[in-house]
Amino acid sequence: SARVLYEFTAEAGNNELSVKEGETLTVTNKSIGGGWIEAQNFRGEVGLVPEDYIEFITLQAPAAPPPPPQSVGNVAPQDLSFFDAYAPASTPAQNQASNGNDPWSTWNSNNNWPSNPEGTQTGKSAADPWNSQMQAHPQAYQGPGAEDDEWDDEWDDTKSNAESEAGEAGAMMRSGAHATSMKISLNKFPGFSKPGPELFLLCKQLVKGKDKIPVYMGEVGPVWLYPESQLDCVVADPKKGSKMYGLKSYIEYQITPNTTNRPVNHRYKHFDWLYERLLDKFGSAIPIPSLPDKQVTGRFEEEFIKMRMERLQGWMIRMCRHPVISCSDVFQLFLTYKDEKDWKMGKRKAEKDETVGVMIFTTIEPEAPDLDLLEVEQKCEQFSRFTKAMDDGVKEILTVGHEHWKRCTGPLPKEYQRIGKAFQNLSSVFTSSGYQGEATLTDALTEAGKTYEEIARMFAEQPKKDLHFLMENNNEYKGLLGCFPDTIGVHKAAIEKVKEGDKLVAASKITSQEKGAMAKRVSTMSYALQAEMNHFHSNRIYDYNRVMQLYLEEQVKFYETIAAKLRQAHSQFTTM
Amino acid sequence: SARVLYEFTAEAGNNELSVKEGETLTVTNKSIGGGWIEAQNFRGEVGLVPEDYIEFITLQAPAAPPPPPQSVGNVAPQDLSFFDAYAPASTPAQNQASNGNDPWSTWNSNNNWPSNPEGTQTGKSAADPWNSQMQAHPQAYQGPGAEDDEWDDEWDDTKSNAESEAGEAGAMMRSGAHATSMKISLNKFPGFSKPGPELFLLCKQLVKGKDKIPVYMGEVGPVWLYPESQLDCVVADPKKGSKMYGLKSYIEYQITPNTTNRPVNHRYKHFDWLYERLLDKFGSAIPIPSLPDKQVTGRFEEEFIKMRMERLQGWMIRMCRHPVISCSDVFQLFLTYKDEKDWKMGKRKAEKDETVGVMIFTTIEPEAPDLDLLEVEQKCEQFSRFTKAMDDGVKEILTVGHEHWKRCTGPLPKEYQRIGKAFQNLSSVFTSSGYQGEATLTDALTEAGKTYEEIARMFAEQPKKDLHFLMENNNEYKGLLGCFPDTIGVHKAAIEKVKEGDKLVAASKITSQEKGAMAKRVSTMSYALQAEMNHFHSNRIYDYNRVMQLYLEEQVKFYETIAAKLRQAHSQFTTM
Repeated sequence: SARVLYEFTAEAGNNELSVKEGETLTVTNKSIGGGWIEAQNFRGEVGLVPEDYIEFITLQAPAAPPPPPQSVGNVAPQDLSFFDAYAPASTPAQNQASNGNDPWSTWNSNNNWPSNPEGTQTGKSAADPWNSQMQAHPQAYQGPGAEDDEWDDEWDDTKSNAESEAGEAGAMMRSGAHATSMKISLNKFPGFSKPGPELFLLCKQLVKGKDKIPVYMGEVGPVWLYPESQLDCVVADPKKGSKMYGLKSYIEYQITPNTTNRPVNHRYKHFDWLYERLLDKFGSAIPIPSLPDKQVTGRFEEEFIKMRMERLQGWMIRMCRHPVISCSDVFQLFLTYKDEKDWKMGKRKAEKDETVGVMIFTTIEPEAPDLDLLEVEQKCEQFSRFTKAMDDGVKEILTVGHEHWKRCTGPLPKEYQRIGKAFQNLSSVFTSSGYQGEATLTDALTEAGKTYEEIARMFAEQPKKDLHFLMENNNEYKGLLGCFPDTIGVHKAAIEKVKEGDKLVAASKITSQEKGAMAKRVSTMSYALQAEMNHFHSNRIYDYNRVMQLYLEEQVKFYETIAAKLRQAHSQFTTM
Repeated sequence: SARVLYEFTAEAGNNELSVKEGETLTVTNKSIGGGWIEAQNFRGEVGLVPEDYIEFITLQAPAAPPPPPQSVGNVAPQDLSFFDAYAPASTPAQNQASNGNDPWSTWNSNNNWPSNPEGTQTGKSAADPWNSQMQAHPQAYQGPGAEDDEWDDEWDDTKSNAESEAGEAGAMMRSGAHATSMKISLNKFPGFSKPGPELFLLCKQLVKGKDKIPVYMGEVGPVWLYPESQLDCVVADPKKGSKMYGLKSYIEYQITPNTTNRPVNHRYKHFDWLYERLLDKFGSAIPIPSLPDKQVTGRFEEEFIKMRMERLQGWMIRMCRHPVISCSDVFQLFLTYKDEKDWKMGKRKAEKDETVGVMIFTTIEPEAPDLDLLEVEQKCEQFSRFTKAMDDGVKEILTVGHEHWKRCTGPLPKEYQRIGKAFQNLSSVFTSSGYQGEATLTDALTEAGKTYEEIARMFAEQPKKDLHFLMENNNEYKGLLGCFPDTIGVHKAAIEKVKEGDKLVAASKITSQEKGAMAKRVSTMSYALQAEMNHFHSNRIYDYNRVMQLYLEEQVKFYETIAAKLRQAHSQFTTM
């Protein structure tokens, strides 16, 4: 038995076996040679795996994986590994499961299942690997090999203190805000369901003063208040640091906001801390995309860092673009803290914040008349339908794109190379004819052959120039869309609660004033949701225009270059 | 058990089974549905085959096969079937055999096998499916399904008469000229080996007068006498005729030579007759490429006829281009006979011709000093080395080209279509957002999607525009090269015989004058071979320049069109 150190994507037709980091294999044949061993995975599939990608006993992984053995084809291994991130993270089996049970199903009125919001949603979102991985809290999620991540060592004490220091409601909210944990609690006590919304629906006083988050009526409907100048930042210059006398090493990234233009340093775990704070505070009103997945492993350290930095940059830009998040104290702290002391203090303050979970709605102030429950409900339905549909569309593009990537870096270059070789071979045969006046043809044939070898290389390189960005964009949206089931879930729960209004009054669980207040509060929640959806839509339209332009532009260049090279090769031939 | 009516090429990943016309299958599951049945071939391979491509009992094949069932992918079936001709005609097993044992090996000094010309050559060339199919006499070769060929019914009486009428030497030569039959005789009587050459080497008088075939010394060495104006002809206007009250139908092609510009009609069997005559008469001195293979089956009658006509045209042009063949009586008869009577008479005369087999060398008159045996032998070695090497190179291109064809018509279009669909799906999801100002993006996305669907179609169509001609050209050369082992074989045999000269004199089998004459005759043979090789080289250089130009030209157009379409799609996107 052996343990997989690095993800490896099998190449079709080579009897290779795809393995995921941390997977355990049964070695069926050690003496294959050429740097390969034959192994069987837990699904009973048997195939070849690079020797260097597994370890037999010890669990200590080397800092950076060695290059794979030859014969994986003429594609530099990193080209493929670089994008293993796009591969469906779950096994086919799991996928099927998640197709059936995913968090969308309850909200998606397009399907005709028994709609039992609490029950179904709970079991389901738990069963959806994509959901748990992309949407749930990284701390909560311990995927295979997560502990291998050298650059994310355990949290220092400050946090655990914070947890305990945090006030009752805060703690409750914090857990209430957590997708997974909330669902688990729902699961455990179906009677005491939806602890979230009523805390806001029935709470006494709303937040006053500067903490208010206004919602205006724009051309497109309810919108957040956008700052005149958009916050922006650059994540760059990753530096490897170490502590404990070099026993533990980590990467520190330099983040420079366009406001202060003063760089601050953060480690991945700090981003993770920020993510957790944002999720706690805004998660009920604003989908907070998870950080770049820890499972994104490059086969080389530099590549891993490059990939993660690129995605941290994308994540930060999305947060900067958000009018509510970008203005929040915690986000500003992260970008502009002056020194270690300032940072530590800010951290404590943020962790003590009690306006988290559904309580965020106490800060929202719509400058518009209240909406009636029906309208609120319709909007909510519409949003969940759309986000579910878009989630499917995005996943389709990711799947197709992933296959296209593999073809462009695998079989296609091989084929064009063989064509090139065949022309060159024929050319050298012709040279041996001993017939005079052969040179013109043989030179031309050789050049044609070399041209097809170049085209082979071009095909292998192209995805990094265009498909990469199309994939990254859709990957980001996949993560973002994964947050909606829970954000929308909170609203659904609130709507349910308001519907029970009369019953609750009759049972004198609440007063009729409270019932009226609840209706008003759910309207506030709806304004927030609509403002957020409008924000989402405008960003989406911008992002997809941008990425499609880039993709097609590069594709045009690609095919034009091929045409030019072939025209050059063509000019070498002469018919006498 | 069922019999295969039409060749069918399986598409990878669809559990389909490739079958050849005439193959017998065991039906393992009739109730697959969708027009498919599951069957097992003689190698035990099991897979799906289109129901309509097999028959269960009767042996009567319909005039034209029906279209295949759907789900064979988005490639019009004929696109693939049209080029089944390129697929290696033999099973992998056979191929391996033929790699080891092929007719080249004995002559190919590059390999270090025990060189035992007669024995090895015989066993081998028999074992080489490509040789037997491409090079041997179509009559001698009864491949699977040959009797299915509705358009080539049995020979009428004239021929069999002819065989008997033909004189002793003629008959002997005729058989001697036949690759297969000659080898068989060698096999049967290793003692009485090489009956061919000495008949010329020791024959008394040479041909006089107009039948003489001169060999001149040109810049490139020995060359045939080329006519001022090159003969050319057009094969066109295939008409379906029928006889026996419509019970038997056949196709008649119209051949118009540029000399008389008067069309004559011929059926495939007439071409076949011409081929046999040319092989008999010139085969020892000039490689006569076999006619388009009978196994070339289109799935539709029109397509079959189109394909065969195209190849008959190619064959005729090659014959017209040859200075010796184009001037021969039999070839002129074929192109310019006045009426049925004229044709019948000409046929008889041609069939009575005794200057066949090695006796053709009695007509060759080199206008140059005799060559010594060493030089003759070196030239012969050089030619066999080159033709063997080129044969390998050509086969490589055919293999690679065949795979490329399948990819371009199979997986690639599918993938681009899926990409196109994915974009269009996302577009329609976006349309459902209800967000205003969506239209620009969704229209652009839809167009981008449609563009990739167009690109899919383009990929599927392209091979017919370029790869087709590259394949046809190499296919022709494969056939031509297949004739060399026997043509060269005759020379090798003659050289061996001359080497035995002294022994034969000592054993008073021949006189010393005869020994002298033999040396002179083998020099004549060498001049003929060199003239032929120089003819081959100049044609080869012309043909490959032409076909490569055409190929690259079309490839350039292809990639430029794609680039243009993508540029158009790109222009639809706008970043606000």
